[in-house]
Amino acid sequence: MQVIDHSAVSTLSTQECYSLIRTQSVGRLGVVVNHWPVVVPVSFSLDGEVIVIRSKSGGKLTHANHANVTFEVDSIDEATRTGWSVLFRGQAEELTPAHDQDLIRRTKATGVTPWVPGPDFSWVRIIPHGISGRRITRLRDTDWDLGTAAYM
Amino acid sequence: MQVIDHSAVSTLSTQECYSLIRTQSVGRLGVVVNHWPVVVPVSFSLDGEVIVIRSKSGGKLTHANHANVTFEVDSIDEATRTGWSVLFRGQAEELTPAHDQDLIRRTKATGVTPWVPGPDFSWVRIIPHGISGRRITRLRDTDWDLGTAAYM
Repeated sequence: MQVIDHSAVSTLSTQECYSLIRTQSVGRLGVVVNHWPVVVPVSFSLDGEVIVIRSKSGGKLTHANHANVTFEVDSIDEATRTGWSVLFRGQAEELTPAHDQDLIRRTKATGVTPWVPGPDFSWVRIIPHGISGRRITRLRDTDWDLGTAAYM
Repeated sequence: MQVIDHSAVSTLSTQECYSLIRTQSVGRLGVVVNHWPVVVPVSFSLDGEVIVIRSKSGGKLTHANHANVTFEVDSIDEATRTGWSVLFRGQAEELTPAHDQDLIRRTKATGVTPWVPGPDFSWVRIIPHGISGRRITRLRDTDWDLGTAAYM
């Protein structure tokens, strides 16, 4: 006996994208480094619509600062092959003492901490240029009225 | 009473990277599209050391084909703030009828299927240029001999 699955892709609204990414605490920063699209998981939080992350000075931050970066957040269920993914595009900006005091306070108030403690982690804000997302859902064929137990 | 956590970052060997990515079925493709490092989750499998994915013809595949792409695979535990991440760098190559028959057979034998069925999914091989990874572990301070129950 075969159960036929139907999957559907839907596009998420900006509001849905923000609602979904607020449910997660880790995303993946995309930065172009020497022509490679480097992808690194990092913890994050939000200051309004701005993504806030921590990054070690130097290294990829040198490539990210003032550059086009992306931030991908998702939640995926491999078993049911469903989930959602949001791609945030923006400009990375390292926080410096020259920034507005209120902006510095708001950024630090997000409380993002790097997973590996160290003295040289900068605060980085990713200013949004655009956000998009999609969701894959799976609908079981309603012709098969087998009840939940049949899928266990 | 405070429990002090120590976290440690370790670099993974090539062999460890391959062993770990074989435990997962979804990774994130990184492709530079119009100067943006686009990051998209996709299901994958391996043909030896080659990543095999499916991608819709056109769109990002046009940007990925014969270009520098990355493929990030991770497993992250947000609760304990531990996990590993592997970044695979390579050259994407869309499978065509002009390819060697044995290569076509091996690629299709990986059985990768897109999560959303459709007629226009190409087979794409990502030929490795390099692979690197790291793992974050957390060690509890051994001075605190409280037993497991203390952390529940």
